[in-house]
Amino acid sequence: AGDPAAGEGKVTACAACHGTDGMGTAPIYPNLAGQSAAYLESALKAYRAGERGGGMSAIMTPQAQSLSDEDIADIAAYYASLEP
Amino acid sequence: AGDPAAGEGKVTACAACHGTDGMGTAPIYPNLAGQSAAYLESALKAYRAGERGGGMSAIMTPQAQSLSDEDIADIAAYYASLEP
Repeated sequence: AGDPAAGEGKVTACAACHGTDGMGTAPIYPNLAGQSAAYLESALKAYRAGERGGGMSAIMTPQAQSLSDEDIADIAAYYASLEP
Repeated sequence: AGDPAAGEGKVTACAACHGTDGMGTAPIYPNLAGQSAAYLESALKAYRAGERGGGMSAIMTPQAQSLSDEDIADIAAYYASLEP
């Protein structure tokens, strides 16, 4: 399982749109706070694999491709740990 | 904009995984409660267009393809109106 404390140090890029508090900074950006880690990992891995198109995928695909499995687990654990 | 009251009558299929309260019934199913309507519409339209693969897309694509633009707006408004 990911380490939320380590994840907090890895969300600089994420936070531009999703906030450090996990709340989207504009309506088109989903809130991540309190989302399950399992779902967040699944979504990031689908973006990384180039499977998830549409929406903001032009931004999310390259972002996710910069992340290791451990990064994804840590980031997912961090956002899952927050209250929406 | 969608009609949340109309949307409530259209989420029978959605609720099996996302709950009538918008909280995922298993960790792999994302919570929808309090998510912005703009994001929910974008995600449903990406599934409907067959753009969003990976994850649970084998379920979500045909579900979304059964929805009109009005259905999507109403369902998005309904889940956006709920407290997470």
